[in-house]
Amino acid sequence: MPNSDNSPRYDVIAIGNAIVDVMAPCEDSLIEELELNRGGMTLIDTDGARELYEAMGPAREISGGSAANTLAGLSSLGAQCAFIGQVADDQLGEVFSHDIHAAGIDFDTAARAGDPPTGRCLIFVTPDGERTMNTFLGASQFLPPAALSEDAIRDAAVLYLEGYLWDPEEPRSAMRRAIEVARSAGRKVAFTASESFVIDRHGDDFRALIDEGLIDILFVNEPELATLTGESDFEAGIAKISPKLPVLVATRGENGAVAVAGDQRSEVMAEPVDAVVDTTGAGDLFAAGFLSGHVKDEPLENCLTRGAICAAEIISHYGARPDADLQKLVAERLG
Amino acid sequence: MPNSDNSPRYDVIAIGNAIVDVMAPCEDSLIEELELNRGGMTLIDTDGARELYEAMGPAREISGGSAANTLAGLSSLGAQCAFIGQVADDQLGEVFSHDIHAAGIDFDTAARAGDPPTGRCLIFVTPDGERTMNTFLGASQFLPPAALSEDAIRDAAVLYLEGYLWDPEEPRSAMRRAIEVARSAGRKVAFTASESFVIDRHGDDFRALIDEGLIDILFVNEPELATLTGESDFEAGIAKISPKLPVLVATRGENGAVAVAGDQRSEVMAEPVDAVVDTTGAGDLFAAGFLSGHVKDEPLENCLTRGAICAAEIISHYGARPDADLQKLVAERLG
Repeated sequence: MPNSDNSPRYDVIAIGNAIVDVMAPCEDSLIEELELNRGGMTLIDTDGARELYEAMGPAREISGGSAANTLAGLSSLGAQCAFIGQVADDQLGEVFSHDIHAAGIDFDTAARAGDPPTGRCLIFVTPDGERTMNTFLGASQFLPPAALSEDAIRDAAVLYLEGYLWDPEEPRSAMRRAIEVARSAGRKVAFTASESFVIDRHGDDFRALIDEGLIDILFVNEPELATLTGESDFEAGIAKISPKLPVLVATRGENGAVAVAGDQRSEVMAEPVDAVVDTTGAGDLFAAGFLSGHVKDEPLENCLTRGAICAAEIISHYGARPDADLQKLVAERLG
Repeated sequence: MPNSDNSPRYDVIAIGNAIVDVMAPCEDSLIEELELNRGGMTLIDTDGARELYEAMGPAREISGGSAANTLAGLSSLGAQCAFIGQVADDQLGEVFSHDIHAAGIDFDTAARAGDPPTGRCLIFVTPDGERTMNTFLGASQFLPPAALSEDAIRDAAVLYLEGYLWDPEEPRSAMRRAIEVARSAGRKVAFTASESFVIDRHGDDFRALIDEGLIDILFVNEPELATLTGESDFEAGIAKISPKLPVLVATRGENGAVAVAGDQRSEVMAEPVDAVVDTTGAGDLFAAGFLSGHVKDEPLENCLTRGAICAAEIISHYGARPDADLQKLVAERLG
């Protein structure tokens, strides 16, 4: 139930993959030997997951999932958040559930019995800090529309959707339904494009959603913007799509980010980092920082700076969930 | 089968807990609130594990187990190693098995079907880097004597035993049998006392093993030495027990370590560390460094220095398995 005064209970509710990252450092030569898609995200099946895991060095497991990482950042920044995603009834599912609850995020999607197991992302981190992701979606791809907590969606200022989950059929239906619920409750819909291959496969869907005015805030990186707009030039891409979006946020890695909202435009440089250890989650945490400002109606430039601060924190250590108190970092920087 | 020339196939074979560490930073106040045994290791049951996990912040999972950590260090130092320990047939068991194999260590103890699940150690890391461990032994405590690979034990220069595993009955029987096998093949037996509470409970066993001359190398820290010898004074403890042991290694945390072998005695200071992040595994890796020198017949002082280098590496990051190439670190320091 929405609160009686219509001020939402949640700042952000997200639908995303519920997966655990399995991360190991590796030499560049291993990326070549295994013919991995360096710096990208590739979907793998059970056999592929077994094969790659065998080739991987000693690893550590840290909860991940793009939208879930964004919520962990938002929660660290003081936002009230809820997550919808599908784990299996197994040990990695317990790990994911524990970590998201421990981050202060509401999460009550029931674990799914039987196969497949909880999804995982095998991440090879090269000495330059670049991550090469290989995702076994597992239970994640079976999130059914029936698992949506529609009351919770109506009770969140922003519905945040992870593009990766547009690929499998059931979650795509769930997300379409979630958009309807959010829009009819007068809430905003934010969408992260996630990866160029998702746009390659579902670009028509995304362009239709944008044309119909169903997306309020779109997060893209440079290659995704090019794939979405068909414009290889960054500025041409921005010019083509920003008029159709209340807010567009385009990130450019070490070259910072641009946001356009109506007739306002703002740019920010990347925040300095002592050493880039692992870029996993940089985009997710940029989105967290941006949204944390956006839900407080902060100026566009502040929202971008918050994004840059959070992205800088996440790439300075292993894993895509914040180690530091992000609220403190933001307060030190922005006062 | 031992090699025909009797030069062993393995430098070290170890019997230990096969557990995954679940680690999270925490404030000192949480240690007090949960009434944990700060800096120590406490055994917990299923209910205790559930309760503490719920109270724990977002965590990361990294393979652990004291003797297994020591082998991971030895393997990074170029030693040939094998591990014997009991995981369950579950996801955490797969994680443990993957990580130990990926570290280059032979491990073929069959996973155990059914309950209990693979053991785990819930580790709360306070801002000073001190770890407070709460271990759910799970499948680990059911390592049966039948799981021993006796040929492999005969084919290892050193049999390394983890004191923690002396507590549960089945692994204790397995370790007693392993000592017989190793001794009758003319191999050395190394033992790490692990924790004062183990000596509180089984001190008579340990003193008997020492008196019977069945232990060649004993690793203790300062409190364990006191409990074992009944001498609160460090030097008095050393004087009391070292005549009964071919090699005694006593570690003193930031105050370094002492080794006594016959009429030789050597001391080493702790190696400097920029910042102590997490002390989990410090003793395990000290043992790894020491043994890596010992199996090469290096001078006592070099063995200690190797230990100090490895301990310094492990406390500079989260987790009890080495992140850096230890062989390179040792070569830089010792040439």
